[in-house]
Amino acid sequence: MRFSRQMITVEEALHRLMGRLRVQEKEEVHITEAYGRTMAEDVYATDDLPHFDRSPLDGYAVRAIDTALATPELPVRLKVVETIAAGDVPAVALTEGCASRIMTGAMLPAGADAVIMFEQTEQPAALVAEVGIKRALRQGENVSRRGGEIAQGAVIVRAGEKVNAGTLAILATYGYARVPVVRKPRIGLLSTGVELLDIDQPLQPGKIRNSNTLMLSALIAEAGGIPLLFPNMPDDLGVAKGALAEHLKKVDVLVTSGGVSVGDYDVMAALTDEPDAELLFNRIAMRPGSPTTALVLHGKPIIALSGNPGACFLGFELFVRPAVQKLSGVQDVWSRKVKARLAVTYAKPCPYPRYLRGWLTEKDGFLYAQPDFNEKAGNLGTLKNSECFIVIPAGGSGKREGELVEVLTHTTPSWKREGLS
Amino acid sequence: MRFSRQMITVEEALHRLMGRLRVQEKEEVHITEAYGRTMAEDVYATDDLPHFDRSPLDGYAVRAIDTALATPELPVRLKVVETIAAGDVPAVALTEGCASRIMTGAMLPAGADAVIMFEQTEQPAALVAEVGIKRALRQGENVSRRGGEIAQGAVIVRAGEKVNAGTLAILATYGYARVPVVRKPRIGLLSTGVELLDIDQPLQPGKIRNSNTLMLSALIAEAGGIPLLFPNMPDDLGVAKGALAEHLKKVDVLVTSGGVSVGDYDVMAALTDEPDAELLFNRIAMRPGSPTTALVLHGKPIIALSGNPGACFLGFELFVRPAVQKLSGVQDVWSRKVKARLAVTYAKPCPYPRYLRGWLTEKDGFLYAQPDFNEKAGNLGTLKNSECFIVIPAGGSGKREGELVEVLTHTTPSWKREGLS
Repeated sequence: MRFSRQMITVEEALHRLMGRLRVQEKEEVHITEAYGRTMAEDVYATDDLPHFDRSPLDGYAVRAIDTALATPELPVRLKVVETIAAGDVPAVALTEGCASRIMTGAMLPAGADAVIMFEQTEQPAALVAEVGIKRALRQGENVSRRGGEIAQGAVIVRAGEKVNAGTLAILATYGYARVPVVRKPRIGLLSTGVELLDIDQPLQPGKIRNSNTLMLSALIAEAGGIPLLFPNMPDDLGVAKGALAEHLKKVDVLVTSGGVSVGDYDVMAALTDEPDAELLFNRIAMRPGSPTTALVLHGKPIIALSGNPGACFLGFELFVRPAVQKLSGVQDVWSRKVKARLAVTYAKPCPYPRYLRGWLTEKDGFLYAQPDFNEKAGNLGTLKNSECFIVIPAGGSGKREGELVEVLTHTTPSWKREGLS
Repeated sequence: MRFSRQMITVEEALHRLMGRLRVQEKEEVHITEAYGRTMAEDVYATDDLPHFDRSPLDGYAVRAIDTALATPELPVRLKVVETIAAGDVPAVALTEGCASRIMTGAMLPAGADAVIMFEQTEQPAALVAEVGIKRALRQGENVSRRGGEIAQGAVIVRAGEKVNAGTLAILATYGYARVPVVRKPRIGLLSTGVELLDIDQPLQPGKIRNSNTLMLSALIAEAGGIPLLFPNMPDDLGVAKGALAEHLKKVDVLVTSGGVSVGDYDVMAALTDEPDAELLFNRIAMRPGSPTTALVLHGKPIIALSGNPGACFLGFELFVRPAVQKLSGVQDVWSRKVKARLAVTYAKPCPYPRYLRGWLTEKDGFLYAQPDFNEKAGNLGTLKNSECFIVIPAGGSGKREGELVEVLTHTTPSWKREGLS
């Protein structure tokens, strides 16, 4: 099969892979451990928010009707019956001609239906027995009504949402000390190739240090998976199959790098010819990384990325990140695509869609896509600068400066300014 | 001072704060712990990359001159003298009429100056004694030259860069098992207010659960700091000052929420009147969060955010995130601003710049800023949806649909589609 592979599109490859992945089960974690996790189910408001009528500012709670005639020149004077701090339960109900000094966030006293800010009263800083109100208030003015933000029973966070700092705020408000999240998928990870040295080994002629494992490990964690590192894969297919069978028991998906091409020792490519392996794809219409392969073995998906660092990185973003997200229960795996103007002409012809590393920039409200011209597919030194992939469609002419191109973003844009045309 | 504060711009406030912050010292961490950290110094290439001439594909290493007459119809036949796998040191130098079968990533044999891919030879899959070369090669064709990607001594990662997966790849390649990074700043965190309940406490009349501490803790960690949580601040100024003095010994910056306004119990506001406190600012021309305060006490900066969740969140993004980044050694703290077209008219007048939560969308290459219309400044339920702040300038007219506005991004855009005009 090495030299007679069937080529499919990126979209078809992804479709085949995603069809073999199921969302992991639910688990509960303490709210302090929930950041970055995906919600496993909808969560509801256990009470109204706010759960009492409250003052949004520092001032005096009043009956609006008592202030009807107030002006800066002729303030209405009301008797101050109480000071209500945030957290207090008011002791005195307001009656005609009375007001309560009230602090931000404090509960309104019975009878009050409006709040005037200190700055619109006389002597705001002083604790006075009688306050001068300098303007008329409408009923309900400056009152945060019970349930005004969220009504009891409303959905506050939906299944499939990723927990961010704001999610924690609303979960904390509603007392969710334990949060239902999707179990993190365990993503096995190994590299193939006897040429690979460990990070702390000195260089040897013909050998290189393994850079893909550490890179993929960081990317898997970033995407929401738990990377499980296995030893490098042996060259021998029989031994490799035995090792794989053991690894697969421990993971939800296995990701490998290297060994997918047409070389004599490409063990991952050879594996796809085995009778018990179900091949999903092994040739994709894309540059770089066309030999990127996926198969199912012992019921577990294996995504076999190219060993070339640039192709490995692209393969991760196109296939592994969506896979980890789907396993993690992320609702919208597909919202990372935008269109942008190509910042500079890219005229290099390519028979297949080419994914250029680059970044998004903005000028006068237009979105530009700037390819990284230090990039070669395998250029290890510039992987760190990539913020998106710019898709140059197949065909002889490439794309001209200013033409709209499709862009697949994969990280927080830094909105770099350099390189804008 | 409560009612006579001097108002300054967001930019001036930030300038004053940043002037009081210094980058933390260097520390070394193992490369597996370096993700997300900021580089403390430039790091150099310890060797050429690649460090030997190598083949970028699977095929045959040849002397280009021997292939000059090769065509598909009349292949040139060369004697196969060796098979070179990745990691091997070639044993045989190529002489006239000879070729070596060579795998991707393998070292070129002496004498070879080009590589032909299997697919352009006869019988590519077979180990043959004589290979038929079907086209002429140029000198250097399909050879990754020693140092072709990176020359020994070149800077591979610069001080101030944040370590991402790509950074790990190049550091691993060069054997940096230990990485010089900036020590994470310790950011103390406490809330003020006796009305605050813990997450696991039942609601009580007039009291609310503390949501800011957990939110800020997550945001601090996200920004690169170590959050240190202290007990809620007492109302009594004297007791509070004593507690603060102890806390400040343990942190690089202290962040508080609540108590900055003009209320009778606003302990952070009261603190700025103390003789040993150096006030940086306590009134900012912005909505929400104008009473956001910063001071220096016992030589340590304190950033006192509003207790209102929305204002607290904005205050974090405007002041605390840049502060944590500066302390962490991040080189470009300021690259998060873009201009975008306002997706819908926002006509509400405001005497000060208004920061609306929202998100960026894209349509036909134009960048749009979509305000979150579920937002009220204090609306806890929608904090989680915020991806940016849209700045509506001061003045009576607001901004119309399609007008360019300044946008401060604070997270990875999801490029949501809904809400586009």
